[in-house]
Amino acid sequence: MTPVLPGPVRAALAAPLVDHHCQGVRRDDLVRAQFETLITRAGHPAPPGTTHFDTPEGVAIRRWCAPVLGLEPHAPAAVYLARRAELGAAEVNRTLLRAAGVVAFLVDTGTEASPDLLSVAETGRLGGAASDEIVRLERVEQDVAEEGLSAPAYLDRLRGEVAARASRAVGLSTVIGYRCGLDVDPVRPARGAVLAAAGRRAAEPKKPLTDPVLLRHLLWTGVDVARERAMPLQIPCGHSGVDPGVLHRSDPTALVPFIRALGPLGVPVILLHCSPYERAAAFLAATFPHVHVDVHDGFAEVLGLAPFHKIMFGSGGWGVAETVYLGALRHRTVLARELAARIDAGDWSSGDAERVAGMIGSGNARRIYRL
Amino acid sequence: MTPVLPGPVRAALAAPLVDHHCQGVRRDDLVRAQFETLITRAGHPAPPGTTHFDTPEGVAIRRWCAPVLGLEPHAPAAVYLARRAELGAAEVNRTLLRAAGVVAFLVDTGTEASPDLLSVAETGRLGGAASDEIVRLERVEQDVAEEGLSAPAYLDRLRGEVAARASRAVGLSTVIGYRCGLDVDPVRPARGAVLAAAGRRAAEPKKPLTDPVLLRHLLWTGVDVARERAMPLQIPCGHSGVDPGVLHRSDPTALVPFIRALGPLGVPVILLHCSPYERAAAFLAATFPHVHVDVHDGFAEVLGLAPFHKIMFGSGGWGVAETVYLGALRHRTVLARELAARIDAGDWSSGDAERVAGMIGSGNARRIYRL
Amino acid sequence: MTPVLPGPVRAALAAPLVDHHCQGVRRDDLVRAQFETLITRAGHPAPPGTTHFDTPEGVAIRRWCAPVLGLEPHAPAAVYLARRAELGAAEVNRTLLRAAGVVAFLVDTGTEASPDLLSVAETGRLGGAASDEIVRLERVEQDVAEEGLSAPAYLDRLRGEVAARASRAVGLSTVIGYRCGLDVDPVRPARGAVLAAAGRRAAEPKKPLTDPVLLRHLLWTGVDVARERAMPLQIPCGHSGVDPGVLHRSDPTALVPFIRALGPLGVPVILLHCSPYERAAAFLAATFPHVHVDVHDGFAEVLGLAPFHKIMFGSGGWGVAETVYLGALRHRTVLARELAARIDAGDWSSGDAERVAGMIGSGNARRIYRL
Repeated sequence: MTPVLPGPVRAALAAPLVDHHCQGVRRDDLVRAQFETLITRAGHPAPPGTTHFDTPEGVAIRRWCAPVLGLEPHAPAAVYLARRAELGAAEVNRTLLRAAGVVAFLVDTGTEASPDLLSVAETGRLGGAASDEIVRLERVEQDVAEEGLSAPAYLDRLRGEVAARASRAVGLSTVIGYRCGLDVDPVRPARGAVLAAAGRRAAEPKKPLTDPVLLRHLLWTGVDVARERAMPLQIPCGHSGVDPGVLHRSDPTALVPFIRALGPLGVPVILLHCSPYERAAAFLAATFPHVHVDVHDGFAEVLGLAPFHKIMFGSGGWGVAETVYLGALRHRTVLARELAARIDAGDWSSGDAERVAGMIGSGNARRIYRL
Repeated sequence: MTPVLPGPVRAALAAPLVDHHCQGVRRDDLVRAQFETLITRAGHPAPPGTTHFDTPEGVAIRRWCAPVLGLEPHAPAAVYLARRAELGAAEVNRTLLRAAGVVAFLVDTGTEASPDLLSVAETGRLGGAASDEIVRLERVEQDVAEEGLSAPAYLDRLRGEVAARASRAVGLSTVIGYRCGLDVDPVRPARGAVLAAAGRRAAEPKKPLTDPVLLRHLLWTGVDVARERAMPLQIPCGHSGVDPGVLHRSDPTALVPFIRALGPLGVPVILLHCSPYERAAAFLAATFPHVHVDVHDGFAEVLGLAPFHKIMFGSGGWGVAETVYLGALRHRTVLARELAARIDAGDWSSGDAERVAGMIGSGNARRIYRL
Repeated sequence: MTPVLPGPVRAALAAPLVDHHCQGVRRDDLVRAQFETLITRAGHPAPPGTTHFDTPEGVAIRRWCAPVLGLEPHAPAAVYLARRAELGAAEVNRTLLRAAGVVAFLVDTGTEASPDLLSVAETGRLGGAASDEIVRLERVEQDVAEEGLSAPAYLDRLRGEVAARASRAVGLSTVIGYRCGLDVDPVRPARGAVLAAAGRRAAEPKKPLTDPVLLRHLLWTGVDVARERAMPLQIPCGHSGVDPGVLHRSDPTALVPFIRALGPLGVPVILLHCSPYERAAAFLAATFPHVHVDVHDGFAEVLGLAPFHKIMFGSGGWGVAETVYLGALRHRTVLARELAARIDAGDWSSGDAERVAGMIGSGNARRIYRL
C-alpha cells in the first residue's frame, strides 16, 4: 500500500506545509443537507434517490476523516454526521485543521463577507499555525462600491483600499474568469472609459461587478499594488475557475497576453486549479519565468513537466475543514507515490526527492510570498 | 494479472449489465475488407502495406474474441476471419452477444435504416436479453422528410412521429454535433423561421438535414416529448460525436447553454463518448443535477471525478458483435482494476466497491431510463 | 525496476532506431548559462534563486547522461558541466549521439542557418549513422527573400529552390503554426494575391515571414513538391508547435480542413509533438489514411488509440546532444513498460509486441520516408 521511501524523504513529506491557497470554513454546526452541498462544488442538493456522499469526495471523508474524528474508517455517512454533531463544529474544525499538518495558512477571504466563515486569524488559531491573508480584488471592489461614492472618489478609494488591505496581506487574488472569462484584454483601460464605467457602477452597487472595463481596471489596480509590494497574484483557471457559461474558454493559455504584459513588471502569477488544463499550466510555468502553478487533479503530470521551483501546494480547502485535511493528505499521498516511483525506477536520487518535496511543500511558497 | 478482489465485488462485476448504448450489428457474412472497415471508425480501407488489425481494436479481437469463437488467444487475423466464416454471422453474433453478459440492450437504431443490421428485437433475442429502442431524432426526421408533405403537415407529422416512436422506446438520441456542432443556440426557434426552413427542406428531402433552424426545432421537439415521457436524451460528444470538420468544437462544455435550458424541464441528459474531453464531461455531471456520462477511453479518470450515480455503462457496440463483447469486457476489466487499486490502497471498503459496480453496471440505467 | 520482457521483444526494443525528427546540436563548448537555457525550451535564464537543472529534463541529464560521460548517476550539475568541459563538445556529442542507438538521423535544419550547429552530415558522422535532411519550408523562403528579387522572380526562385533542396532530402517541414496558427485556410491562394504579397515581402526581406497569404503559398509550394517526390510533410502541433500568443489554437484538429485538402494528393502528413493534444493527434491518425503521429509526452495514450502503422519515433533532439540521447532512451523505456504491461495482462502476444516495437522504432519511418 504505502510506498517504501527512504527516511529523509518520508521526513520531507511529513514536514509542515505552507497551504498557500484555502478559504474560510464554516464555524457553525451543519445539518446533512448543508454538509452535502459543501462537500461538492455543485451548489445544489443531490438528485432524488442519490447522495453527494456517493462521490470521490464523499468516500474520502468517510475513509480518511472518520478516523481523525475517532471513528472507524469507512464509517457510514449518518454515523459520520452524528459524530460531527456530537463534537461540535469548533472541535471538528480544530481537530481536522491541526491534523492537516500545516505551518501557515494563506487564506483567501473570498468574494463575500460571511459571519459563518472562520476569519484568517481564527483559521490559524484553530489550526495551530500562522495565518496570512490573500486579498481578493473583487471583494475589495464590492465593499467600496457599496459605499456609494462618486465615480472619481470611488476610483481613489478603490486604489487606496486595495493598497491598504495589501499592506496587511501577503498576496492578491482575482476571480476575473468568473466575471468575464480568462481571455482578458491585456491593455490597461483608458481613464475616460474607466470613469464612465465607474459612473454606471454607482447605479447598481450591490450587484457583483461584471463590467469588463472596470474589472480590467481593478485587475491593473491590483497589478500596480502587487508590483509595489513585490506580491504575487493568484488566478483560478480551468473549469472551476470560471463561470459555467464560459467553460470552453477556461484554458489558462487564454491568459497569455496578460501574462506577457506582466512579464516586465516582476509580478509573479500563480495559476490555481487549472483542471483539466494542468498540462497547459505546466507549459506556461516552464515558458514564463514569473508563472507558477498549484494544481490538484493533474499533480502527477505537472511534476513531470514543470520546473520544480514553480509548483506549490495549496489545499484548496473551502466550506468544511474536511477539505483542508483531505487536500493536505492527498498532496502527501500523491507526492509520496510519485517520488517512490521515480526512486524505484532509478530516475531520481533520494536527495532529489527530499529536496523537491521541500520545495513544493513549503520552500517555493516561502520564496514567492516572502514569508 | 487479474486483480484480487473480494467475492462480493467480483460478483457485482460479473452481474449482468444494462448496455444503455449500442447500435445494430451486421447480420450478414463479411469479407475481410468489410470486417476491417467496421472494426475501426475510419470508414476507409487500411493504407497499402498496412492492416486495420494493427490497431488496439484489432489486437483485442484476436486476443479476446478468438477464444469466444473457439480459437486460441492471439489467433492470426486470417484464422480469425476463417473461423468467423465457418460459423456464419448468425452464430457469431449469438455467441459474442451472449458472452457480453448483458441483461438488457438499449439499441439506438441510427440515422439510416439498413436491412443489413440486426433490429432491436433481434439484438435482444440473439443476445439472450431484453431489448429496448433509443429513438434517434434525426432518423425520424429523415423518414418524415421523405414523405413529401407541405411545411405545416411536415411539422405536425414530425411531432406526431417523434411522440409515437418514443411511446415504444425508453429514450431519445440526437447527433446534432455531426450536423452543426455542439455549440447549439439554446433558444427554441420561432415558428416563422421553422416554417420557412421546413419549406426549404421539402426541396431536398433525401439529403441529411443540416439546416440549423430545423435541427434546433427537431431537438426541441425531442425535448418536449422527453419531458412528457420523463425520458432521457443521449448526446454523443467529443471527437467521435461530431463531424471531423468541427472537431475543435466537440468539447461537451459547448453544450452548457442548452444543458442550462433543460435544467428546469427535468429532462436527463446523457453525454456519450466525450473523448478526449472525459474530464469536462465529469465536471458537467458533477455540476448539473440532470447530466450523466458514459465514457470509454477515460473511464478511470471519470471514476475519480464524477458522482457515482451519474456514470453509466454502454458498450458503444456498432457494426460487428465483437465491439459489443469487447465493450462489456473492457468495462469489467477497467472497473475491476480501479476498484482493486482503491481497495488495496485502503481508500474504499469492499462494500463501497460492490455498490458502485452495481450502480454503474445497471442500477443507474434502471433509474434514469425507468426500466 | 526494468520490466521483464521476452528476448525477441528486448531485441526489437534495442534495435537501431530511425530518428525521423531531430535538429542540429551545438558544436561549441557551452558555459553553464548557455547549457541551462538549451535544456529547457523556455529561452530565458532560470529566475533568481532557481536553476533549470530543477526540472524533469535537468534531473534526467544528471541521472542518465552522467554515466554515458563516465560519471556516477545523479552527479551534481556542477560536476556534470565540468566533465562536459573536460571532454570538449565534439567528444560529448560523439559519445551521446552514438549512445542513442540510432541508425539514421533525419535532421530538420531549422529556420535559421547557424554555424554553431552540427550540419546534417556531421550529425550522421558523429552519431555513427546515416543522415538525411528534412527541408524546413520557412528556411528556404527566408534564404530566397534575402536575395532581393522582384516579386515574379522571387516566386519562381522559391519554387525552384524548394524543389532543388527537396531533391537532396527525404521530407519537408513547416512551422506555419508559429507564424499564423494551425487553423490554416485550406485553399491555395490566388496568383494575384500572392504576387501582391511577394511585392510587400520585398520591402522587409530580413524579417521572418508572417504574411498569411505568402505563408499559404509557401505551404502549397511545399505540397506540390512533396506530391511530385512522394515525400511527407512534418507539421509541429500543440503547445510547442505554435507561438505562445496562439497557444489556445494549437490543437491539431485545427488542421483538419488542410488535412482533408491533402487527402486526394497522396501527401503523407506527420503531426509532431502535439502536447497536450496527443489524443487528438491519435484520433486524426485513426481517421485519415495519410496522417501519422510522433508524440513524446502522451506516447502511452497514443499507443492505446492510434493504428500502430501510423506511430513514429523521433527524439525531438535540439540544441544539446543530451536531448537526442534522452529522447531515444525515453522512447525505449516507455515502450518497454507499455509492452510489458500488455504482455503481463495477457492482452498482447510476444510476437505482437516485437512487431509493433519494430514498426514504431524504424519500420514505419522507412516506409513513409522511402529510406
